[in-house]
Amino acid sequence: MHPTHIPTKLASFSDCWSPKIVASLNGQEVKLARLSGAFVWHKHDEADELFYVLKGRLRMEFRDGPAGERSVVMGAGDMLVVPRGVEHRPVAEVEPCAVMLFEPAGVVNTGDAERGELTNEAERI
Amino acid sequence: MHPTHIPTKLASFSDCWSPKIVASLNGQEVKLARLSGAFVWHKHDEADELFYVLKGRLRMEFRDGPAGERSVVMGAGDMLVVPRGVEHRPVAEVEPCAVMLFEPAGVVNTGDAERGELTNEAERI
Repeated sequence: MHPTHIPTKLASFSDCWSPKIVASLNGQEVKLARLSGAFVWHKHDEADELFYVLKGRLRMEFRDGPAGERSVVMGAGDMLVVPRGVEHRPVAEVEPCAVMLFEPAGVVNTGDAERGELTNEAERI
Repeated sequence: MHPTHIPTKLASFSDCWSPKIVASLNGQEVKLARLSGAFVWHKHDEADELFYVLKGRLRMEFRDGPAGERSVVMGAGDMLVVPRGVEHRPVAEVEPCAVMLFEPAGVVNTGDAERGELTNEAERI
């Protein structure tokens, strides 16, 4: 039972779109990820997904959002829950961009999108 | 689907040991809490509890920890999971101390301890 220093963990890797697990609890995982540019459109049918921006600026786009809510822009300290089933695309608008994620264990980053070069299984660091 | 700015939420209340809910997902809740002095000894039989220190310094004491692990001290950026069933007591060692909590929805802050003046149902802010 030792504390995990999040800034140190974040500094320990540099690859983007490759979430790292830093804590597990109640069937959920806390992950850190670095983001660069635009991700792929995807959704998670069974998982709500929380984004907490640590650095930079993140634009979250929604394919089918109500008019005027097609995207939201978040800076450091902003938190957003993308509900299950909602198609979204994270875009790092100001880099370096880093986020903390909170979601059920085993969620794959690209969700229902076809597996591709951005698909990464989260590893524990 | 609007972002929640955590520093603004934290600045919106000043009462201590009274967690506020800022996000709900997957049956879990994200809460913010201000801490002052020592809390009560307690445990949560059905819930792992994550503490992420935002400000100040938090000492987490464990009643039955292995020798040398009776307490851990955490500063801003440190994260700790207290597993279910583990008796613990948070103590704000340097104030103001503020934490973010991740835990299952409905967890009461004083756990199995007798309800007292520090017992507070979390409210959504």
